[in-house]
Amino acid sequence: MTMEFTRPSHRLPRRRGSRIPAEPGKPYFIEKGLGDRAHLFTDLVTVYAGGEQTENTFNFFTVEGPEGDVIPAHVHSDTYEVFYITDGAVRLFVEDVEGQQYERLLRAGDFGFVPKNCPHAYRIERHHSRVVGVAAGPGGTFERFFENLGVPTEELGLPSEPYVPGPHQFATVPQRYDVRFLPEHQWRTGS
Amino acid sequence: MTMEFTRPSHRLPRRRGSRIPAEPGKPYFIEKGLGDRAHLFTDLVTVYAGGEQTENTFNFFTVEGPEGDVIPAHVHSDTYEVFYITDGAVRLFVEDVEGQQYERLLRAGDFGFVPKNCPHAYRIERHHSRVVGVAAGPGGTFERFFENLGVPTEELGLPSEPYVPGPHQFATVPQRYDVRFLPEHQWRTGS
Repeated sequence: MTMEFTRPSHRLPRRRGSRIPAEPGKPYFIEKGLGDRAHLFTDLVTVYAGGEQTENTFNFFTVEGPEGDVIPAHVHSDTYEVFYITDGAVRLFVEDVEGQQYERLLRAGDFGFVPKNCPHAYRIERHHSRVVGVAAGPGGTFERFFENLGVPTEELGLPSEPYVPGPHQFATVPQRYDVRFLPEHQWRTGS
Repeated sequence: MTMEFTRPSHRLPRRRGSRIPAEPGKPYFIEKGLGDRAHLFTDLVTVYAGGEQTENTFNFFTVEGPEGDVIPAHVHSDTYEVFYITDGAVRLFVEDVEGQQYERLLRAGDFGFVPKNCPHAYRIERHHSRVVGVAAGPGGTFERFFENLGVPTEELGLPSEPYVPGPHQFATVPQRYDVRFLPEHQWRTGS
């Protein structure tokens, strides 16, 4: 397999004020909402564990957002992704490697799995929805994508204004985190 | 690192009636509660994704149970473990590799992280508590531990009677899944 991207996550400096211990191998606890936070578009992403903590095996984060539009379709060549809904309702769109498309409205307790190389997107369909995510693969983890395409924040709660990345971020960040946007992609599933 | 155990999870036959597709690489969705279920003692464990789905990178499961006693202390030599509470209250006990002990009552939205080689246990302190778990490491994933030490079930809901493994299961299953029970272990944290 050709690795066309690098995974800088384990080389990033630790976030100031992070509740995640600087030293891997230490047990820790984080209260609700107090993981490493970032704003990206209208959403709040909170990282509770990343590659540094797990020898680059897996990560654990939440995505919270308001009712909104379908996010841009994208694909990961080496990353498997979990969507587990704890609040609200999120419509997940996925295309398998044969081109078959699926969509499903997921509610609290429902689960969706997106394998590598499957284009996908989602749309939050209820305010205050929350998705638990794990996104990792044999090449590593990608939890620092969000704060690099978006912006780290110390705030609690959703962005007061959407954070829209600039052209330079779009041009450089996704490829470093195994994210490839598919601007021409169409969902033919009907919703 | 010496691998003193084998990880048979990816060689197990697929569960009959499983909502997890037989063929890795396919997207899928599972409604709340309908993952691969097992009973172990008083608890219900539901697996939504395992090593077969992620090239042995990570897994994703829930543990639900009634208010009860502290489970037996145990340790994993090659597995990192996440405890993310979605319902109820769970007290997590962890000892770090220097012998320092911690305990913390986790409620909905709270997170606990147990590195490899850290003895740990938990106690469910409210009925209908639910923990989201990820448990994996460089050697693989361990989600099939529960149905092997316990028993697979098609039922929904908690066990009507506790399922207590027999001596043969205790003697053979834990070591196959990187679980080592610590019968002499004492929690000195006071709760």
